Amino acid sequence: MLESLFYPNSIAVVGASRTPGKVGHDIVQNLIDGNFDGTIVPINPTTDTICGLPCFKSLKNFRDGNIDLSIISVPRVAVLESVKQSIQAGAKAIIIISAGFKETGPEGAALELQVAGICAAKKVRILGPNCLGLINTGHKMNASFAGSMPTGGGISVISQSGALCTAILDLAKGRHLGLAKLISIGNKADISEVDILKTLANDEQTKVIVGYLEDIAVGDDFIKAAEEASVKKPVVILKSGTTAAGLKAATSHTGILAGSDTAYGAAFKRSGVVRAERFEALFDFATAFSMQPLPEGNRVLIITNAGGPGTMAADSVELAGLKVTELESNTASALRAKLPAAASLGNPVDVLGDADPERYVAALLAGQNDPYIDAIIIILTPQAMTRPAETARAIAANLDGKKPVLVSFMGGQSVMPGREELVSAGLPDYESPERAVSALKAMWEYASWKKRPPRMVTRFRVNRRRVERIINRRLRTGRTHLGEVKAKNILKAYGFQVPDGYLAIMADEAVEVADRVGYPVAMKIVSKDIVHKSDLGGVRLNVKNSEEVRDFYDLMLLRIKQRAPSAVIDGVYIERMLDPGMEVIIGMSRDQQFGPMLMFGLGGIFVEVMKDVTFHLAPITEAEALQMLKSTRSYEILKGKRGQKGVDLVAIANGLQRISQLTTDFPQIAELDINPFIVGGVGNETWAADARITLRPLSK
Amino acid sequence: MLESLFYPNSIAVVGASRTPGKVGHDIVQNLIDGNFDGTIVPINPTTDTICGLPCFKSLKNFRDGNIDLSIISVPRVAVLESVKQSIQAGAKAIIIISAGFKETGPEGAALELQVAGICAAKKVRILGPNCLGLINTGHKMNASFAGSMPTGGGISVISQSGALCTAILDLAKGRHLGLAKLISIGNKADISEVDILKTLANDEQTKVIVGYLEDIAVGDDFIKAAEEASVKKPVVILKSGTTAAGLKAATSHTGILAGSDTAYGAAFKRSGVVRAERFEALFDFATAFSMQPLPEGNRVLIITNAGGPGTMAADSVELAGLKVTELESNTASALRAKLPAAASLGNPVDVLGDADPERYVAALLAGQNDPYIDAIIIILTPQAMTRPAETARAIAANLDGKKPVLVSFMGGQSVMPGREELVSAGLPDYESPERAVSALKAMWEYASWKKRPPRMVTRFRVNRRRVERIINRRLRTGRTHLGEVKAKNILKAYGFQVPDGYLAIMADEAVEVADRVGYPVAMKIVSKDIVHKSDLGGVRLNVKNSEEVRDFYDLMLLRIKQRAPSAVIDGVYIERMLDPGMEVIIGMSRDQQFGPMLMFGLGGIFVEVMKDVTFHLAPITEAEALQMLKSTRSYEILKGKRGQKGVDLVAIANGLQRISQLTTDFPQIAELDINPFIVGGVGNETWAADARITLRPLSK
Repeated sequence: MLESLFYPNSIAVVGASRTPGKVGHDIVQNLIDGNFDGTIVPINPTTDTICGLPCFKSLKNFRDGNIDLSIISVPRVAVLESVKQSIQAGAKAIIIISAGFKETGPEGAALELQVAGICAAKKVRILGPNCLGLINTGHKMNASFAGSMPTGGGISVISQSGALCTAILDLAKGRHLGLAKLISIGNKADISEVDILKTLANDEQTKVIVGYLEDIAVGDDFIKAAEEASVKKPVVILKSGTTAAGLKAATSHTGILAGSDTAYGAAFKRSGVVRAERFEALFDFATAFSMQPLPEGNRVLIITNAGGPGTMAADSVELAGLKVTELESNTASALRAKLPAAASLGNPVDVLGDADPERYVAALLAGQNDPYIDAIIIILTPQAMTRPAETARAIAANLDGKKPVLVSFMGGQSVMPGREELVSAGLPDYESPERAVSALKAMWEYASWKKRPPRMVTRFRVNRRRVERIINRRLRTGRTHLGEVKAKNILKAYGFQVPDGYLAIMADEAVEVADRVGYPVAMKIVSKDIVHKSDLGGVRLNVKNSEEVRDFYDLMLLRIKQRAPSAVIDGVYIERMLDPGMEVIIGMSRDQQFGPMLMFGLGGIFVEVMKDVTFHLAPITEAEALQMLKSTRSYEILKGKRGQKGVDLVAIANGLQRISQLTTDFPQIAELDINPFIVGGVGNETWAADARITLRPLSK
Repeated sequence: MLESLFYPNSIAVVGASRTPGKVGHDIVQNLIDGNFDGTIVPINPTTDTICGLPCFKSLKNFRDGNIDLSIISVPRVAVLESVKQSIQAGAKAIIIISAGFKETGPEGAALELQVAGICAAKKVRILGPNCLGLINTGHKMNASFAGSMPTGGGISVISQSGALCTAILDLAKGRHLGLAKLISIGNKADISEVDILKTLANDEQTKVIVGYLEDIAVGDDFIKAAEEASVKKPVVILKSGTTAAGLKAATSHTGILAGSDTAYGAAFKRSGVVRAERFEALFDFATAFSMQPLPEGNRVLIITNAGGPGTMAADSVELAGLKVTELESNTASALRAKLPAAASLGNPVDVLGDADPERYVAALLAGQNDPYIDAIIIILTPQAMTRPAETARAIAANLDGKKPVLVSFMGGQSVMPGREELVSAGLPDYESPERAVSALKAMWEYASWKKRPPRMVTRFRVNRRRVERIINRRLRTGRTHLGEVKAKNILKAYGFQVPDGYLAIMADEAVEVADRVGYPVAMKIVSKDIVHKSDLGGVRLNVKNSEEVRDFYDLMLLRIKQRAPSAVIDGVYIERMLDPGMEVIIGMSRDQQFGPMLMFGLGGIFVEVMKDVTFHLAPITEAEALQMLKSTRSYEILKGKRGQKGVDLVAIANGLQRISQLTTDFPQIAELDINPFIVGGVGNETWAADARITLRPLSK
């Protein structure tokens, strides 16, 4: 897809330099040092040779396809001209190393747009500007000033921070890890993480994709590309800026609780992206993914030559939601014969402090053969009789490659030879058992995602036209808030049941409506100027007869006149009181990047104080909606605890699916709360008892 | 205190060997290689020299104080005799390296007890058995077979796992960290973590104590020793076995929620111990503590040469509960002059990708001089112009040592020279900014603990005799459960207000009582055979008049006869209904190690479903009790949210303090729940509305 960028035959370096340490020099030198097979064309008006290669004054002589890829490292003022000449020379891809664009302010941003426009017109792709370049070990191409060529391998890296590229490159070298591609995406004037994800998904050399991202250009595209990539290979991403979020103004509960980090979390979960929470985790996870098969289940065997670290590992396994499973009895008795009597055959299997490589191998084989074990963690501490290097070799020689085996050789100098053996044999090694367990957890989560059932989004029959009319009418008035009555009309059109009720504008009419819907009734003031109705005396519940309706109607109007004299009153909404059920909140807040984020939580304090809510991106399936319920801490209450009857979970899931459809159909809906959504036992009716919707005008 | 163990002049090695690799050889060799200044006396019946030293057939010739410390590494059967001979030779301390004791079963345990008994009688201290020995770099003594002598330094290590000792030693060497002492405590037949904590607390060479523990011998002693040590220097402990807990049978809410790990957490918190959750954290924290001053506050400045890692660090700082604070304006403008225009002077301060050492120094000085900054984190990524080693030297040269400075040089090979400079200059360096932040958080927590106000435990005037009588009478019957009535009598004696009420054994009497206490009343069946009263129809609330009392009395007895025919009924308890207030739970569960653990939680679902509870060890101060309330997620509800009035927090704290006193006074009380404890607004009465107590017989 980005063939000319990743696999060029000829590369021009515009702004090449004779001075070591200068970017224009280092790129040429890196290309040479990396043994690039094709043609390297240094461009510099003032010299004849650079790094031993003939240097050209300008690209003007290279027309009609002589150049595949142009790397531009010139002062900002000269970038535009260099881009034009590169295109004329036939470049199909351009890497703009130079900085001074969007990151510096409006002027730079304008120039960046201009450059991007010219390239787009000619179908030339740009990487950068303000980037480090690109490395493709599979093409022996180090088109960067990031440092020397890494060893080839299965890990590809996308980074929005050039500095992190060099740190990662440096780290990979220190750990003897092999890289496939490394791409510094810089300002993403054209090529973004989405393009790179698509390319790497189809790159055979790449076994795992590792990314550092600060923002994402287009949420939907990212989700699609990430999901397609995740189906083929693991995508591990570190996203920074997680706490800086939450700056947008929000009025609904859902909006207040839905930070942008929550949205990223939901997007990653949807698309199977494995999230790294710390820098180390990027490589801890990538190593495991690139070297070992995925686990079939979550049952872990721990093998150790010391009790303490074994216990530490077992603790971590349980905290990670994986299982510490004992060996099946046949496997255990076979192993018993091969270990000293003092060895412990529980889990952890303790092969004892004086364990030789044979004992480790015996335990490893037992774990590999045991049908009830899905993954193995091996711990070695350097004790008097320990032979780290031989043990590493023996473990490596006996792997059957069917279950993931992760290793922690604890210590420093004395286990170092063992560690190197491990890495070269394709066994991921971790400083501590806890880090090995974190990596295994990531593998299990990814494996579970891969096995997820096909996503079937239900389309309900709804009255879309009606909603369209209500929304358009409201937007035409210039108002964006939809109060209870209008919001309920919209919900009704999408299959929600709302309490029977009508707007009354006189006391007589109120009584008439109440007689019709049946007692007791609820009475609520309707005014666009009043948001917190009950605070002003604008709500009366459980009104029992016509006399009370009349009294409270007059009293309510009196109170509102006293307390909010300037409010324009539409009338009083009279509705039948509902049978009590459990009150939950379902809602939606539209994320700038990822679109509608659905929320679920138990009502009242659970949402307001305990923040016990879950989010999921729309469109949502029934299974996903049910999973949202399960993910709350208060799920036990929904299910019914201690003999109490639970509520109709499917009915709540149905409500979430309908909101999903509504907010997917109408991008004008910015926020929506159904609070409370009343739900009873299975088979009972559900009610959207109160609701509010906030709109945003669609830009033309 | 353990002078002969840590600072012996002469050391016997019983079971010394000529064969390299054997423990008895390695210990002698390690003593020699470590340049031990005193006399080394190898004992072996079959040879004349070992490692060039004259070897003796037996210790029998060394009487009357010739030997200070004896290290025994002989087969288990010969240990007892070797111990006796060591004592006769004058040894005041014995290290038993040999294994085969408590860890192997009852026989080994018996032998261990016998050996301990003999030594105790002669006031000779034992380290081990089943240990690796001891290293004291301050005495040039490597009395272990753990490996070669580490560099001297300020970190002392206690480990209950010999294997971890070697791993730690190995790691310290790899990281160029200096150690003071390393003690492998093995089976702890005599010397335990408590003795070592006391010794290290007073050891001038030791700046920070690092421990790996699997269990703790005596909870109270540990807390006392740990607290005394923490006052002088940081104590960092990794405790394994955190999830294996919770096996004990518990009947109260408090008991069910109070796992042993919770108790360890509470004990560590009380005694100022910094808890490490992962193996890496032990050294990450120890390095920071041993090299840098404690922060005075929690405001952190981040200095970086790359945006991405800076954001990552800022995220971590906020997640850790520390503050990302901008430079004060004077400091900022002074710094502005020294940095390029493109540099960002927010927080993080971005000194840009091409930063030289001078820019780092300028930012460091700004941070050091700024009165609103308490700690500094410096991040360096290896970019084209970066000079890691010089930058490290420049930073080190400009430290004023008043605020903690933690560094993360990210990457591998290319930053390695810088890392080594950092360590040798006393600057803790971390693989990632996140790890530096974790270490800083540990420092801040420890600094806060050190500044805690003096602990003043209130003693209330109570009727202790009365409780003693109730408890003894109940224990004499062989029953351990105290039902509502008896439990309330106990609480009353400790100053709790309980609703006015009496036991009625006839309907007439019930009416009489109800008339006396006033309507409405609550009626509850009293029977030692019935625990869940309301499930059987044994509770009636809001009984309004005498006729209802009579009806429900008869109905209740009828129902109980039908539903629990074999239950012996004491009668029906009639009490005045309470004014509604907020229902909370306060309780106590006695931990085997650490004694009474107090619990607080909001009532009902908050405890049962949300597990939103906090624990604290008794005795508790008012400040600590208030802190317990604050630590719940539901604190917002207690305080009163959105204009609602809050409850009387001090009254709840008072209740916790009274339970603290009660359960400290009476070790017979195993579990206690006051559920609900009803509390209203400030000045309102509080009520112990229901209660249960479980006793345990005190062993004679």
